[in-house]
Amino acid sequence: MDGNHGKRVAIVGATGAVGREMVKVLHARRFPAREVALFASERSAGKTVATPYGDKPLLPFTLEAMRGMDFVLMAVSGDFAKAHAPAIAAQGAIVIDNSSAFRLDPAVPLVVPEINAAAAHGHRLIANPNCTTAILLIALYPLYRKFGLRRVIVSTYQAASGAGAPGMQELEDGVRAWAAGEPVVNREFKYPLPFNLIPHIDPFQDNGYTREEMKVVWESRKIMDAPDLPISCTSVRIPIFRVHAESVTVETVEKITPDAARAVLGAAPGVKLVDDPAQFRYPMPLTATARDEVEVGRIRQSLVFGEYGLDFFVCGDQLLKGAALNAVQIAETVLAREPVSA
Amino acid sequence: MDGNHGKRVAIVGATGAVGREMVKVLHARRFPAREVALFASERSAGKTVATPYGDKPLLPFTLEAMRGMDFVLMAVSGDFAKAHAPAIAAQGAIVIDNSSAFRLDPAVPLVVPEINAAAAHGHRLIANPNCTTAILLIALYPLYRKFGLRRVIVSTYQAASGAGAPGMQELEDGVRAWAAGEPVVNREFKYPLPFNLIPHIDPFQDNGYTREEMKVVWESRKIMDAPDLPISCTSVRIPIFRVHAESVTVETVEKITPDAARAVLGAAPGVKLVDDPAQFRYPMPLTATARDEVEVGRIRQSLVFGEYGLDFFVCGDQLLKGAALNAVQIAETVLAREPVSA
Repeated sequence: MDGNHGKRVAIVGATGAVGREMVKVLHARRFPAREVALFASERSAGKTVATPYGDKPLLPFTLEAMRGMDFVLMAVSGDFAKAHAPAIAAQGAIVIDNSSAFRLDPAVPLVVPEINAAAAHGHRLIANPNCTTAILLIALYPLYRKFGLRRVIVSTYQAASGAGAPGMQELEDGVRAWAAGEPVVNREFKYPLPFNLIPHIDPFQDNGYTREEMKVVWESRKIMDAPDLPISCTSVRIPIFRVHAESVTVETVEKITPDAARAVLGAAPGVKLVDDPAQFRYPMPLTATARDEVEVGRIRQSLVFGEYGLDFFVCGDQLLKGAALNAVQIAETVLAREPVSA
Repeated sequence: MDGNHGKRVAIVGATGAVGREMVKVLHARRFPAREVALFASERSAGKTVATPYGDKPLLPFTLEAMRGMDFVLMAVSGDFAKAHAPAIAAQGAIVIDNSSAFRLDPAVPLVVPEINAAAAHGHRLIANPNCTTAILLIALYPLYRKFGLRRVIVSTYQAASGAGAPGMQELEDGVRAWAAGEPVVNREFKYPLPFNLIPHIDPFQDNGYTREEMKVVWESRKIMDAPDLPISCTSVRIPIFRVHAESVTVETVEKITPDAARAVLGAAPGVKLVDDPAQFRYPMPLTATARDEVEVGRIRQSLVFGEYGLDFFVCGDQLLKGAALNAVQIAETVLAREPVSA
């Protein structure tokens, strides 16, 4: 792909749910890497993991080890990212950070490549958005561009994977315990998740919304460059492994119809239109799991905003478009704009 | 309670999920019954079932057997209700029908006693609303009365019990099969429900909404006597046993604040205010299961309708306020208005 026979890529936080997907996505998309190095916490470092690139050692993270890397994909906590990402970028790597640490920093671009790829250019530190936001915007942005938006109302159905590998494991363990007639234990989630739902993700803010809900508001505005767009979100954890679903109602500036929306969404990058009720086709975790595209369906004229409104439903893989895939797409975007080296 | 030493009550469809709850609710609320007779399909008739009233035979339904009954609670299909309810009422019983057969019939009252108890009076055939509607309106109606409503937007998280006992069983069997590494079978639901969600309940209508979604629109307008109120609903089945949750956004006529809403809802019949984020208290299936009251919480000022809007979240037991409890409350309402007999 370039004169250096590929890039050196580091994944920091390689043992987490998102980190593991990052390795798979790099390989599946044939990212031009001559080296993919995996970094993990001290607890995991020294072990070996199976990857599509073969068995790989887990290396201990040091700033020194990041030197010479072309891309550093970070799937770590906000605190860790805040402490290390700027220094890694200062050494020359392109850092793509999946935490919320830099997303709202005006100096750091927050990128969904289908929407604002250009924002990434010239930056060494780039933020990957919140999972719910990235999945939402794949459907919302094409409608925003074509019809304008006056109001957006979102209710989410979020998977356990949003709490990482431990969240997914807790759901699995909980359901197995229930089936065995044993008590269901919760640590990652505030309450047991099996056969329950929890309308609380991330800490509560002074306005009564959770930070997860406000991330959708703040990040959507930044990514779409719609700083005043009224958006409201209710975020709910449900007992599902790795797909976030979202019920969305929009009020538009221009008149809109379901057919016009389908025409726009059917041509939009990253969207899979799954909207044929007569054939029982609509977005579902069952079909959206482990898929790159965000399923969009149940498109209908809004009963509250009439000709200026639409209801629809989306499902996207939280670990892919919601995290790892978007991060790798950002790296691809940066690569595509790079001057060809000799 | 009256000079007849109690009423004769029939439950038709007594082996279903709702029918079984009706027996329990009658007993728990000390409904003044001198007889509670259980009727079931021919397949079940002849068997005996354990109830809070002791072991009871399941009787075969005949119109003749309904003669002399004071109350007939029907937990049967719409077709069965349509075929038999008017004839039962013509024989003198008060018929309370849980199906959708008569709900939109202008000659038949559709009653949530906390809202429109008076509508039941003088009628021998009374319709019990859709479960999602009854649960929603317990929270919505007090706000409508106090603040007025311009728009209502609802996204639901509906339990397997909405598909009756077979739906609950299918979820249980499916999860057990998954835990045992066996295939998950679906019959009641269009797709496997474990670790999935299905944005499709009841048949699709020409406008792209499902009938379940339109029931919320049509029935809410009738019960609240708000024939033109714009309401939009997205109904989603999730892998939970018997509580329906609903994420609700309202635009009001008068200004509203979360505190003002809490004051109104805290005093509203049938509501349990569960709204203390600092203490991690919010509505959940875990806490709303097998409870009469509808939990209401996550109350916050709307970010899209500002001073004229509110977001909130409700959880209610689908088999209780969503079905059996409301039906028994209707019977109590009728009784309370009856002239005292000698």
